[in-house]
Amino acid sequence: MSLNFVFLGAGNLATQLSLACKNAGFNILQVFSRTEASAKSLAQKLNTIYTTSVRDINPDADIYIVAIKDSAFDDVLPHVNFEGKLLVHCSGSMPLSVLKKYSENYGVFYPLQTFSVDRNVLFWEIPVFIEANSKKNEATLLKIARKISGSVSVLNSHKRMYLHISAVFACNFVNYFYTVASGILKENDIPFNALKPLIMETAQKVQEMAPENAQTGPAVRFDENIISRHLEALENFPEYQAFYESISKSIFENHKK
Amino acid sequence: MSLNFVFLGAGNLATQLSLACKNAGFNILQVFSRTEASAKSLAQKLNTIYTTSVRDINPDADIYIVAIKDSAFDDVLPHVNFEGKLLVHCSGSMPLSVLKKYSENYGVFYPLQTFSVDRNVLFWEIPVFIEANSKKNEATLLKIARKISGSVSVLNSHKRMYLHISAVFACNFVNYFYTVASGILKENDIPFNALKPLIMETAQKVQEMAPENAQTGPAVRFDENIISRHLEALENFPEYQAFYESISKSIFENHKK
Repeated sequence: MSLNFVFLGAGNLATQLSLACKNAGFNILQVFSRTEASAKSLAQKLNTIYTTSVRDINPDADIYIVAIKDSAFDDVLPHVNFEGKLLVHCSGSMPLSVLKKYSENYGVFYPLQTFSVDRNVLFWEIPVFIEANSKKNEATLLKIARKISGSVSVLNSHKRMYLHISAVFACNFVNYFYTVASGILKENDIPFNALKPLIMETAQKVQEMAPENAQTGPAVRFDENIISRHLEALENFPEYQAFYESISKSIFENHKK
Repeated sequence: MSLNFVFLGAGNLATQLSLACKNAGFNILQVFSRTEASAKSLAQKLNTIYTTSVRDINPDADIYIVAIKDSAFDDVLPHVNFEGKLLVHCSGSMPLSVLKKYSENYGVFYPLQTFSVDRNVLFWEIPVFIEANSKKNEATLLKIARKISGSVSVLNSHKRMYLHISAVFACNFVNYFYTVASGILKENDIPFNALKPLIMETAQKVQEMAPENAQTGPAVRFDENIISRHLEALENFPEYQAFYESISKSIFENHKK
């Protein structure tokens, strides 16, 4: 399989996925991004060429991976002739059908991970979820995915969106709470390092036990004394105070069940 | 230093801390808990004896570690004569001064970690925060702490409470969001396993970068299209919908700064 890829987009996801594709032996013909710095930087990492102009997107690839904001699809995709090509997006929450108007062959390749441009990841350990408009295209995507990930499944658009929502809670909101914690520590001149072993153990626990069994802290104990001390202490952080109150209540209500 | 300990309490924290003390070579004379099953189980692990009666608490230890809910302090502590003994609590959010009425020598030993009875932890990697009512008692606690942890600091009650609040966000609320994610997946017949690599990577990222730089997802991109799809999809989970909306807004507002 010497498939040729073009990557449309050069952000966090495009960077890590294109590197994984290259490492698996696929050819990356070109990178497109409106942002020249990103396009150039990714093309260098891939040892390939780039363009910032939709009219110069290479029409000769087999697979076009779209890793741009869906609101930009209409600015880019109508300019390329995808006849006989496979057009693939990587979004958790865009249905497969959004690609229908651009190509006869289309699919979704959704790697469930948090990507940053400058942080390389072991792609092999990332679960990848596939969907396509035909069995033939599904088979192509499965073959590609199995070259770069050890965990590949087929999942429809509806379920993929709920998977994405669960990831927003388990990753994006979790990271935001790390940020909230970091802010509270900064105000008290305590280094963030103090929390690092706790953060790791919290994540490690649920690798082995169900999260509902791993719950600790004042809310699950319904330790009203501690909870009211904390709420009082957060008076200068009204936003965090509101989160503290509503989430503690939710933990308690859920635990009663 | 052949110090003798009595543990008052046999829950998650008491279990892990007493095991660490035993492993460091200290003598655990006795475990007290009102709940016989817990007292017995911990005493067996420590190869020591237990009691469920406050009147039978051994008066001959050097150090009494109180690891019970603070609302139970008054039911237990007045029954023991702590003259010449060091009385220590382990709570992040109870000030040092709560022990004043029970003993002339008192302190705090706060290990920052999430503990479960059945999950052993490497205590050496857990940051421990110490406070005491005199330099002499502080020195005693520092000596003990440095035998069981590689990271020991002195921290006053005010700062310790904020440290505890930050831990509630970075651990207890984080774990609750794992539970929320797990619930959303269950509704859609997707195994929780799908999220495990993401959860680990999210925690690992902030071991090396500041959490504000690790933020990804629709809220920080202000991807209104995705956010409104998710809010719509959460219509059957009004509580999660409210969390989704308020936290996304907070992420966006904070990122603008």
